[in-house]
Amino acid sequence: MSDILDRINEPNDIKNIEPEEYSLLAKEIRRFLVDRISKTGGHLASNLGVVELTMAMHLCLDLPKDKIVWDVGHQSYTHKILTGRKDMFMTLRKYGGLSGFPKCSESCCDSFNTGHSSTSISAALGLAKARELKKEDSTVFAVIGDGALSGGMAYEALNNAARLKSNLVIVLNDNNMSISENVGGMATYLGKIRTNTKYLGLKDGVEGVLKKVPMVGDFMIDRIKKSKDSIKRLVIPGMLFEDMGLTYIGPIDGHNMEQLVTAFRAAKQMKEAVIVHVVTKKGKGYRQAELNPPKFHGVDPFDIKSGKSKKEKNYQTYTDYFSEALVELAKEDERIVAITAAMPSGTGLTQFQEKYKSRFFDVGIAEEHAVTFAAGLAAGGLKPVVAIYSTFLQRAYDQILHDVCISNLPVIFAIDRAGIVGSDGDTHQGIFDISFLSSIPNLTIMAPKNGQELKEMLRYGVNYDGPIAIRYPRGESYNGLEEFHSPIEYSKSEIIYQEKEIALLAVGSMVQTAVDVREELKKLGHSVTLINARFIAPIDEDDIATIASTHNVVVTLEENVLNGGYGQAISHIYSKKHLNESNLLTIALPNEFLPHGDCDILKAQNEIDAQSIVQRIQSQI
Amino acid sequence: MSDILDRINEPNDIKNIEPEEYSLLAKEIRRFLVDRISKTGGHLASNLGVVELTMAMHLCLDLPKDKIVWDVGHQSYTHKILTGRKDMFMTLRKYGGLSGFPKCSESCCDSFNTGHSSTSISAALGLAKARELKKEDSTVFAVIGDGALSGGMAYEALNNAARLKSNLVIVLNDNNMSISENVGGMATYLGKIRTNTKYLGLKDGVEGVLKKVPMVGDFMIDRIKKSKDSIKRLVIPGMLFEDMGLTYIGPIDGHNMEQLVTAFRAAKQMKEAVIVHVVTKKGKGYRQAELNPPKFHGVDPFDIKSGKSKKEKNYQTYTDYFSEALVELAKEDERIVAITAAMPSGTGLTQFQEKYKSRFFDVGIAEEHAVTFAAGLAAGGLKPVVAIYSTFLQRAYDQILHDVCISNLPVIFAIDRAGIVGSDGDTHQGIFDISFLSSIPNLTIMAPKNGQELKEMLRYGVNYDGPIAIRYPRGESYNGLEEFHSPIEYSKSEIIYQEKEIALLAVGSMVQTAVDVREELKKLGHSVTLINARFIAPIDEDDIATIASTHNVVVTLEENVLNGGYGQAISHIYSKKHLNESNLLTIALPNEFLPHGDCDILKAQNEIDAQSIVQRIQSQI
Repeated sequence: MSDILDRINEPNDIKNIEPEEYSLLAKEIRRFLVDRISKTGGHLASNLGVVELTMAMHLCLDLPKDKIVWDVGHQSYTHKILTGRKDMFMTLRKYGGLSGFPKCSESCCDSFNTGHSSTSISAALGLAKARELKKEDSTVFAVIGDGALSGGMAYEALNNAARLKSNLVIVLNDNNMSISENVGGMATYLGKIRTNTKYLGLKDGVEGVLKKVPMVGDFMIDRIKKSKDSIKRLVIPGMLFEDMGLTYIGPIDGHNMEQLVTAFRAAKQMKEAVIVHVVTKKGKGYRQAELNPPKFHGVDPFDIKSGKSKKEKNYQTYTDYFSEALVELAKEDERIVAITAAMPSGTGLTQFQEKYKSRFFDVGIAEEHAVTFAAGLAAGGLKPVVAIYSTFLQRAYDQILHDVCISNLPVIFAIDRAGIVGSDGDTHQGIFDISFLSSIPNLTIMAPKNGQELKEMLRYGVNYDGPIAIRYPRGESYNGLEEFHSPIEYSKSEIIYQEKEIALLAVGSMVQTAVDVREELKKLGHSVTLINARFIAPIDEDDIATIASTHNVVVTLEENVLNGGYGQAISHIYSKKHLNESNLLTIALPNEFLPHGDCDILKAQNEIDAQSIVQRIQSQI
Repeated sequence: MSDILDRINEPNDIKNIEPEEYSLLAKEIRRFLVDRISKTGGHLASNLGVVELTMAMHLCLDLPKDKIVWDVGHQSYTHKILTGRKDMFMTLRKYGGLSGFPKCSESCCDSFNTGHSSTSISAALGLAKARELKKEDSTVFAVIGDGALSGGMAYEALNNAARLKSNLVIVLNDNNMSISENVGGMATYLGKIRTNTKYLGLKDGVEGVLKKVPMVGDFMIDRIKKSKDSIKRLVIPGMLFEDMGLTYIGPIDGHNMEQLVTAFRAAKQMKEAVIVHVVTKKGKGYRQAELNPPKFHGVDPFDIKSGKSKKEKNYQTYTDYFSEALVELAKEDERIVAITAAMPSGTGLTQFQEKYKSRFFDVGIAEEHAVTFAAGLAAGGLKPVVAIYSTFLQRAYDQILHDVCISNLPVIFAIDRAGIVGSDGDTHQGIFDISFLSSIPNLTIMAPKNGQELKEMLRYGVNYDGPIAIRYPRGESYNGLEEFHSPIEYSKSEIIYQEKEIALLAVGSMVQTAVDVREELKKLGHSVTLINARFIAPIDEDDIATIASTHNVVVTLEENVLNGGYGQAISHIYSKKHLNESNLLTIALPNEFLPHGDCDILKAQNEIDAQSIVQRIQSQI
């Protein structure tokens, strides 16, 4: 029974709910979220944390005229419920269904598409400035987590927001977490505010929100007098932000509707950028998630009572192989250090972290720093392994090029989630890394055919004297072809089956697909060579010339967009070396953003599944 | 006469200079810098500002064991003088000569290669952590300007430096400038420190450096008492940094050797990350530069007395054309707004800034924010033009892809300095943008053949409903072929001269080169078609098929690395459409970083000058 939630069917319906019903509505929303996500999977803990925060914003704002920009955006489920999308939740993150992130195409109440971290203040400032110039009257809110605040872009935006002479409300949703625990000086600072000061509401009542300054002042003077160096320890709530030229309100209890509404209403009225510091509890209201927020950050379908995942994991992922290999290598070579940008678990570094604490660095959501920090470690004589998802590595393109590759420093990039990632959708697909990395001089790029080869490539990488990237996909590792493990030779591909007529030249994950393609083609009477490309850059041109001259058709296969990808590089070798002896067919993803949905569906839709490939080859012959 | 400077020939020679000679040495170094740079050109104002700062570091450090990481690095000239490179200054920024930036390959006293802004703290933190893990004993200094501190990466690094349990000294060289005046909340904050507090040395003598806390404490208490909301206005020096978990020393007079040495020696001894806030004057000691630091940021050879450039500029640059066109368009269309990342003058936005102040945004050195802010402006209904140099746009790859292109927002990227930039060298060459942009879905990329066409493309761009990038080179615009200005048709190239045999298919700046190539080839009796590619992405494939089928040889020409470039895209169309009728020759830069030197030399060295191209074509025929 969801008596109150049943009355929420359109944007602004929440305004018809009586204040005394708010807490029941919050409870119903949480029950709804746990129920639906337990069936579909999705982001849970972050959404449970912001139920009241979202309700309060919707009470204070007039959507779609007013705008909310959700940083990262995976915490926007309550917002979706409150804007008429409740009934779509059974399709959450499915192909053609409700996106797990804000999507302007989904609702006019979503004002900006997000996915990656730390973009919201920049975008919201743009919306606020556009409002000013167009002399419109609307309110813009950005909602950003304390984790996202470790991203440099958020600081760049704060630095600029400080100059604003009209209103912008930045809701700092502080739960002391990224996916794992938040790290760094700013996190410590926010922690001090939470610990050393009381909620304004508890001390002065909600009317006190705007009177914070004198209260804090008296409190501080006492402390300053007590100890000469206490100034280093004292915490004037939000003074850091005030120093930067922003107005600070907080800390606010993020589960107290009265406090939230009062603070938001006050913040709306100011003619400047205002930070409302809201303290929330990740996983709030669902005990399992409260106890282990990282586990319930993003989940597969699970049993509500036990919290146990319904998707039994009886396989090894590529990440598992990476994880194992790194720990093995680190034992042998003390120079190996590992760096993650707030994803120790996702990138498989937890084991390394436990065994080699001093050699492990979680830098927070800060991919740019992660890479240049690694460059510094390498310049200092170490062997840094930077483990980042393909999509997030996009953040550090310049740092890879400028700080690592110009100096030819031996940094190993372990690029997880390369290729189609599925249900997170367009903002998270790892389908560009071959393109953006291939043009960087000095950078070697590899992709393994299976989990075993990933381990071998990592060993190769840590012994290679220069920057090297290894890309591998999300999910279950391929365990076929394990009998093929010829030593890795720089820039050379690996011949798995040598036949004639058709050559399948497959990159990484596509070797597995190519095995199926080959089987089908052989059934159709063809003679098919299978080659594991191994090196995406540099490519041995003579190798390609030999393949071209001994086959009628050469087919490149990659899980990356066509433009700037492996196939185009092979095309170029074809024209450069006048390899007209054979036809070349380049199988890659189209130059488009791919929506959310099951990987298999997306592969079939984009014709890189085995069946489509067989058809494409047949039409080429 | 440079009596003292003559005694500086090796690293650490400065330690043999008597303290009473320091001011004379500083004077001699400044005279040397002004003299040499007046002849060679180079970065002047920033180098004049850090003479004492550099001397003091060299007195406190033991190079090369200790490390200095120079943020950006164009202010490292005094460092070069003090490390035995004085005699190379007449070759500054020339091909094969002294680099204008730190180069590990040039001296063992350069510990990390820099060029782009805001990287130094990350790299220095890496060096410091490597030192810890290797149990070495050395000191690491990072020198970062207040301008570079507006880059988010610097903040990411500070956030992590706060956790360090060993020493790292961050010298904040605060001159209130990027190239132009520094902007944003942090700049305002530093300004308040400079204005509201006195130099420690002036108040307490240099021994007082470490006693700053109580002094400040008493001073503050008075102020807090005076006014209830004074807390918002008061400035505890460096409290913002202390709040972030860093130790702050300052402000220090950056031209007072005694203060500098005392502060650096104190900072070296702490077991944590320390910010030493040093206030310097950009251009110090050369009146012309003091009066107009932006003009003397980077200079051509000039007359010392008048300060006038010796290189008379009697031509229009591409930037000039852009500048003019934007002002014209802005007059017609109120939705046009312009964004720069700390380069209003370099990108040609000064005129726009004067005419349309409220529509102009200098966001500081913050390319990521610049792009996503533009995305927000576009989402709010405006037409943002983001003017950024090609090399710095590398910083915003993910923002272009994730925040602009996924949502297909109408942001115009005006990419200046695309192609070889010359004397700034490898860190600044704009030779990757075609590669990193071409794979981004929804993004249209164009390049004009001359200044006039740049104006037409900008007009086309602001009327196009989607993200669009226009790349154009540094320096004098080509003014030939002005009689050819057929209307721009989406994705179509422009035929300039239609003949047979050889087709030159040239991108942007290479059209000018192609004109010369064609002339030479015609002298040799060939029939040569000249085509201006206009669109780099998307490329009309039928267009290419027609060109291929009507010529014996097709030659693509681009000022970008080969990998992921235009030529490879054409190669792919060749293999996809089985265009074996003609040979394809792809002229591009090799996949290498290019050093500093005159553009003409670099073009010849890399065989993209007219003469080399003619030879390459001849050998292909």
